[in-house]
Amino acid sequence: MTTLIFGHQSPDTDAITCAITFAEYQRQAGNTDVEAVALGEPNAETKFALDYFKQSVPRVIKTAANETDSVMLVDHNEAQQSVPDRDQVTVQYVVDHHRVANFETDAPVNICMETLGSCNSVIFHMYKEAGFKISPQIAGLMASGLISDTLLLKSPTTTDEDRRIFAELQELAGIDLNEYGLKMLKAGTNLSARSDQDLIDGDAKSFDMNGTNVRIDQINTVDLNEIYDRQSAIQDAMKAEADKEGYDLFLVIATDILNSNSVGFVIGDRSKVEEAFGKKFDDQDRIALPGVVSRKKQVVPPLTAAYKG
Amino acid sequence: MTTLIFGHQSPDTDAITCAITFAEYQRQAGNTDVEAVALGEPNAETKFALDYFKQSVPRVIKTAANETDSVMLVDHNEAQQSVPDRDQVTVQYVVDHHRVANFETDAPVNICMETLGSCNSVIFHMYKEAGFKISPQIAGLMASGLISDTLLLKSPTTTDEDRRIFAELQELAGIDLNEYGLKMLKAGTNLSARSDQDLIDGDAKSFDMNGTNVRIDQINTVDLNEIYDRQSAIQDAMKAEADKEGYDLFLVIATDILNSNSVGFVIGDRSKVEEAFGKKFDDQDRIALPGVVSRKKQVVPPLTAAYKG
Repeated sequence: MTTLIFGHQSPDTDAITCAITFAEYQRQAGNTDVEAVALGEPNAETKFALDYFKQSVPRVIKTAANETDSVMLVDHNEAQQSVPDRDQVTVQYVVDHHRVANFETDAPVNICMETLGSCNSVIFHMYKEAGFKISPQIAGLMASGLISDTLLLKSPTTTDEDRRIFAELQELAGIDLNEYGLKMLKAGTNLSARSDQDLIDGDAKSFDMNGTNVRIDQINTVDLNEIYDRQSAIQDAMKAEADKEGYDLFLVIATDILNSNSVGFVIGDRSKVEEAFGKKFDDQDRIALPGVVSRKKQVVPPLTAAYKG
Repeated sequence: MTTLIFGHQSPDTDAITCAITFAEYQRQAGNTDVEAVALGEPNAETKFALDYFKQSVPRVIKTAANETDSVMLVDHNEAQQSVPDRDQVTVQYVVDHHRVANFETDAPVNICMETLGSCNSVIFHMYKEAGFKISPQIAGLMASGLISDTLLLKSPTTTDEDRRIFAELQELAGIDLNEYGLKMLKAGTNLSARSDQDLIDGDAKSFDMNGTNVRIDQINTVDLNEIYDRQSAIQDAMKAEADKEGYDLFLVIATDILNSNSVGFVIGDRSKVEEAFGKKFDDQDRIALPGVVSRKKQVVPPLTAAYKG
C-alpha cells in the first residue's frame, strides 16, 4: 500500500515542496512505494515555484484512511493541522521544524526535527547525512521552501545554518536564488486577484492554546494599503468563518515582506493579543507589530504564554 | 548555565548510559556546558556496566528548575516519566525510541527519534552522521544500553540495524560483547538482594491510557520461581503503591530473560489486561505471556488499544 507524504492544511510553499523532496529522499532510501500529496491546492507563490522547476502539482487529498494505512508528515505535527482521519492511519515518519503539540502515537515512530528556518533545511541535512544525491530540481524546490518560510532569509527564524544551506542550494540549483526568490515572493502577493475568503484561509493554521481554539492566518504583501483598503470586508469574512468553525480567537497578520513589519486584526477576545504583544489595538481595530514577520517565532510563543498566564 | 541531560525516572541501563553518551556527543558538537545526570540511582545491572567501563555514577537530581533553565531528554519524552518540573525549563533536545505522548513545547525543538531497539542506537547514528569519535569506553556504554533494552538482541524490538550497530560497537569497544552482555544481564537479576518495593519500582513507568493512570513495571529474572515464591508479598506492595500513588492499574511483568517468556500480576481492573492479551488470569492470579519480553512493543500497544476500544 502506498505511503502518503504530506504537509499541513492550507499548505504554503515549504509544506508542498517538502512532501516532494522527502518523497524523493524515501525513494533514494529504497522505499519506492511513496506518493507526495497535499492537503490543499498550492497558492500563487507555490505555483510559481513548481512551474519554475517543472514539477507537477501534487494530488490533493481530503482524507488518508480511505486509500492507505501509512503516512509520513512533513512541516507539521499538530493533529488539527493534519489530515482529519490521522488517528486511523499509522504515522511512520515526522520531519518538522515547529513546536510539538497534539501529537501522540501508540508505538515508536521516526522523527527528525531541528530548530531551523524551514522544514526543507531539515530534509537537506537528512540527504547530506545519508549521502543522497540532490538534483538541480530538488535543490530548487528545497530553496523555494526555505525562501518562502524565511522571507528570503530575513525572518528571525533564519539561522546561520539556513544561510549556509542557502549558499549550497544555490550551487546545486545553478541559479541566482536571490533574484529567483524575490520573483517567487512577489508572485505570492498579488492580492487583488484573491477573494477575502482566500486571504483569510490562504496561510491559516489552528492552535489549541490552553483549551482555546485559536486560528492564525498570515497574509504577505508588498503594500499594507492593499490590506487596509479591504479591512472591513476581511473582518466580515473572519467573523463569518469564526462563527462557522468555532474559533474562539481568529487573528490575521498582514506582513509587509519588503519592510519586515506586520499589522494584526482580530475576531474574538482582544485582551490576550494585547497581553501577548504588550500593546493596544488602535481606533481602526489594528494592532501594529513592527518587526514581526514570523508567526512561529514571534506570534505563537507570546500568545501561548498569554493563554497560559 | 549548565544544560542537564537525563533519561527517565526509575532509570534502566539505556536511560543512564544515554545521558552519558549524549553528553559526550554534545561536547564534541562544541556544547561543553552540559552534565549527564539521572532521575534515580542506577540498578545493579547498570552499576555493573558503569564499573566495567570505569564510568562514574551520574549525580541524581529530583528537580531541574532549581539549577538550570535548559534540559535535554534521552530515552523518554512523556511528561510523567520525566523530571516533575519539566514545564518550568526549556527542552532543547529529545533523543528517543519510544511512542510519543504527553509531550508539548511552546517553541520549536530538536528531536531525533528512530524505531530502533535502544536509544543508544539512535545516538550511535548521530555520532556517525556528525563524524564524531566513539571511544572504547563510550562504545561499551552504548553497547550496555543496547544489550539491556534488547536482552542481548533477543527482544522483538531488535532490528537488523541494531545487530549491525552491535557488531560495530564490538569492534570499537574491543571486547566480546556477547560474553560481557550475559554477565551484565545476570548482574541485574540477583532478586534475592532486592526488597519487594525495589522490585516493583525498579523498572516501572507510568502511562496515560485514554485518561487511565497505568503503571507498568518489568522484573528480569533467570528463574520465574524466584518471583512465584514472593508473589503474595509483591502483590501486597503493589496494592499499597497503587493506593498511595493513585494508579488505576498496576501491572508487573516478570520476564525470564533466558527463555524469553513473561508472566503478569495486576492490581486494579483485570479486564483490560485480559482483553489486551486475549486470555484470562489463572487461579493463581497470574497471566502467562509466552514470548513477551518487550514492554514497549508487546505490552504498551495492545493495552493502549484495549483502553481505546
